[in-house]
Amino acid sequence: MTAVDTTPALDLGPARALSCRECGHQIPLAPEFACAECFGPLEVAYDFGSVTRADIESGPKSIWRYRRLLPVPPDVESHPNTDPGFTRLVKADRLAAALGVKSLWVKDDTGNPTHSFKDRVVAVALAAARKLGFKVLACPSTGNLANAVAAAAARAGWDSVVLIPSSLERAKILTSAVYDGSLIAVDGNYDDVNRLATELAAENEDWAFVNVNVRPYYAEGSKTLGYEVAEQLGWRLPGQVVIPVASGSQLTKVDKAFRELAILGLVEDTPYRVFGAQATGCSPVSAAYKADQDVVVPVKPNTIARSLAIGAPADGPYVLDTVRRTGGAVEDVTDEEVVEGIRLLARTEGIFAETAGGVTVATAKKLIETGQLDPDADTVLLITGDGLKTLDAVENHIGPKAVVPPNTAAVRAALDS
Amino acid sequence: MTAVDTTPALDLGPARALSCRECGHQIPLAPEFACAECFGPLEVAYDFGSVTRADIESGPKSIWRYRRLLPVPPDVESHPNTDPGFTRLVKADRLAAALGVKSLWVKDDTGNPTHSFKDRVVAVALAAARKLGFKVLACPSTGNLANAVAAAAARAGWDSVVLIPSSLERAKILTSAVYDGSLIAVDGNYDDVNRLATELAAENEDWAFVNVNVRPYYAEGSKTLGYEVAEQLGWRLPGQVVIPVASGSQLTKVDKAFRELAILGLVEDTPYRVFGAQATGCSPVSAAYKADQDVVVPVKPNTIARSLAIGAPADGPYVLDTVRRTGGAVEDVTDEEVVEGIRLLARTEGIFAETAGGVTVATAKKLIETGQLDPDADTVLLITGDGLKTLDAVENHIGPKAVVPPNTAAVRAALDS
Repeated sequence: MTAVDTTPALDLGPARALSCRECGHQIPLAPEFACAECFGPLEVAYDFGSVTRADIESGPKSIWRYRRLLPVPPDVESHPNTDPGFTRLVKADRLAAALGVKSLWVKDDTGNPTHSFKDRVVAVALAAARKLGFKVLACPSTGNLANAVAAAAARAGWDSVVLIPSSLERAKILTSAVYDGSLIAVDGNYDDVNRLATELAAENEDWAFVNVNVRPYYAEGSKTLGYEVAEQLGWRLPGQVVIPVASGSQLTKVDKAFRELAILGLVEDTPYRVFGAQATGCSPVSAAYKADQDVVVPVKPNTIARSLAIGAPADGPYVLDTVRRTGGAVEDVTDEEVVEGIRLLARTEGIFAETAGGVTVATAKKLIETGQLDPDADTVLLITGDGLKTLDAVENHIGPKAVVPPNTAAVRAALDS
Repeated sequence: MTAVDTTPALDLGPARALSCRECGHQIPLAPEFACAECFGPLEVAYDFGSVTRADIESGPKSIWRYRRLLPVPPDVESHPNTDPGFTRLVKADRLAAALGVKSLWVKDDTGNPTHSFKDRVVAVALAAARKLGFKVLACPSTGNLANAVAAAAARAGWDSVVLIPSSLERAKILTSAVYDGSLIAVDGNYDDVNRLATELAAENEDWAFVNVNVRPYYAEGSKTLGYEVAEQLGWRLPGQVVIPVASGSQLTKVDKAFRELAILGLVEDTPYRVFGAQATGCSPVSAAYKADQDVVVPVKPNTIARSLAIGAPADGPYVLDTVRRTGGAVEDVTDEEVVEGIRLLARTEGIFAETAGGVTVATAKKLIETGQLDPDADTVLLITGDGLKTLDAVENHIGPKAVVPPNTAAVRAALDS
């Protein structure tokens, strides 16, 4: 039990404070995201106490099995939420053979309620936002996040305000509009939409913009990917993990999860290497890594991997810290390689990933070919979104083997050709 | 243990024989689907022995936890397969309130590997086909089944032959083509494709057409929906269940699962009522039910619920038997109601179902309004496929609330309007 004097007024489980990642200044748990001292990003600080494997294993088959490690209230399960997570960790022997590595696993987050890892972060954001006194769930987004927010708000019975660029493809609009929240198309690019979200967050005190004013809580949801990988490997850390980099938050949180598990004694503290994957058309972190720089120079994105197309990644410097500390690397691949990555994963393992997944697979391939990934170490690839949402990326590359008249000889001839 | 003289040559776990549903004639386990005596459909007959809840609960988080109740070998987990199932059973309080029922659950099969229940039946078909000596996985399909077969074959490293009508929408072609099996577009309608599949099955002894020559094994996969519902309710049967009807197989297998669980003592033998849901544009079973007929008169389908558009449903008469025996009913809904059903489920629970799910929700609504469903009984709705695959059904009905310039006043005005 925690002593009374360290218990925060707000019961978000093990969360104790927000701490600045730059200057270390701490403030009480609150709907804040930037340090008042230095404008650095705030992060959740915890007092976990003792957590056992049995505590976790007896929990639900969702991210809430890790509620003792997340900034959510102890009764998080009793409020309606999408309850994502505990997705499959697939032993990928055929992909391993194709890539020339010994032991490979694919963490398949396409099984989440709206088919991307965003359900994880949004579920944590919703649980925290409820405690923080918010009434509306909101975000700026171009795709997966919009889906996840609209669905979670619907499930909770909350209003949602989802801002998208008006130029967004019709299919992506439909998949968010169906939940019947307030989907607002904004005449402008994603930067305009993002700026508008920050302004709206300031003007509307009861709107939780998950990736803006609730970001410190939201981001912690990505830790669950790391927890699940370790638990599903039989409570051990993988030797290597390849993670797509958009803002970079996910990569740093998986690393944080691995370190927490080791510190808590839930896994042996074995060395692991973290690798980042970007599309060449939006590869500011990879460029900084290769140039041995600490500063990430913003770029104007131009890639089919739109869910990774963040030109000025907020957590870029932390990604560089993580990969350098663990002996990993950041690599990038062309759009052609992305499509080949999607196809390779589908062909070998029957998993259809979105473009970000293609980036991860293709980057893993390149890292192996260039000797950066150890083919003998246990390796995990994070597949964080579903191919059904980025059909346009593959549509000019695949199709039926043949079009034939309805007779068996024609089918046989087509197969033999 | 089973006595030696009843152990079949082929080890498919508890499966002992194929038994004709019409005349009861039994044959050894084999790649057969029609009775040699009367041409009736063959079904798997079992000797389960003793199966406990603990046996099941200690199993994997997939359909293989029920392997002692399925026609699959004891080592089924050691062969690559898509390992579907154990999807969420969502307590749907907001949908319950909207429909006016007390206790409602949604079985959300959109979480399967290719996002429909077809992964269940295909996984069982693949496991049985491997033992039966087949080398190629095949099917005729217009959508979900094609996805599931192509993905499962890829994962297993098998060749696949998937036959589709050449008129199929581009998006559905892509989602099957990406797995790189032999996807063959046939110039003809679905009936032509189906007939071609039967001819090809006869000509190619090592091709397992999952829904043709392996159908008795394949169909058993749907039992897992019933097992999971009962286990996830805390090992009890629901009072009422609403199930979409295409061929009708799924409905009869869920009923079979409930009866097996009761006979094995895994649940209390409490009464339950089974309801079938069809789209009015393809409602031959509903028509027969309402006319108090035993014969299902084939129809020419005309509905947006294409995954249910089977005009001559093979298991139609068995559906009628089941709903009449259990005190259920079959009802049908218009395409407009289907769209409203999809939207209602999305709006209240954050679950985006394909048209078949819309049929189920809308039918449940109609059954309640007409007094056929008891609003006080525990009710389960089966949502068997994903809205991402039938976007065309909703595209003229939903969209952004407004298109605005990038300023907060414009957003506020749009929300207030």
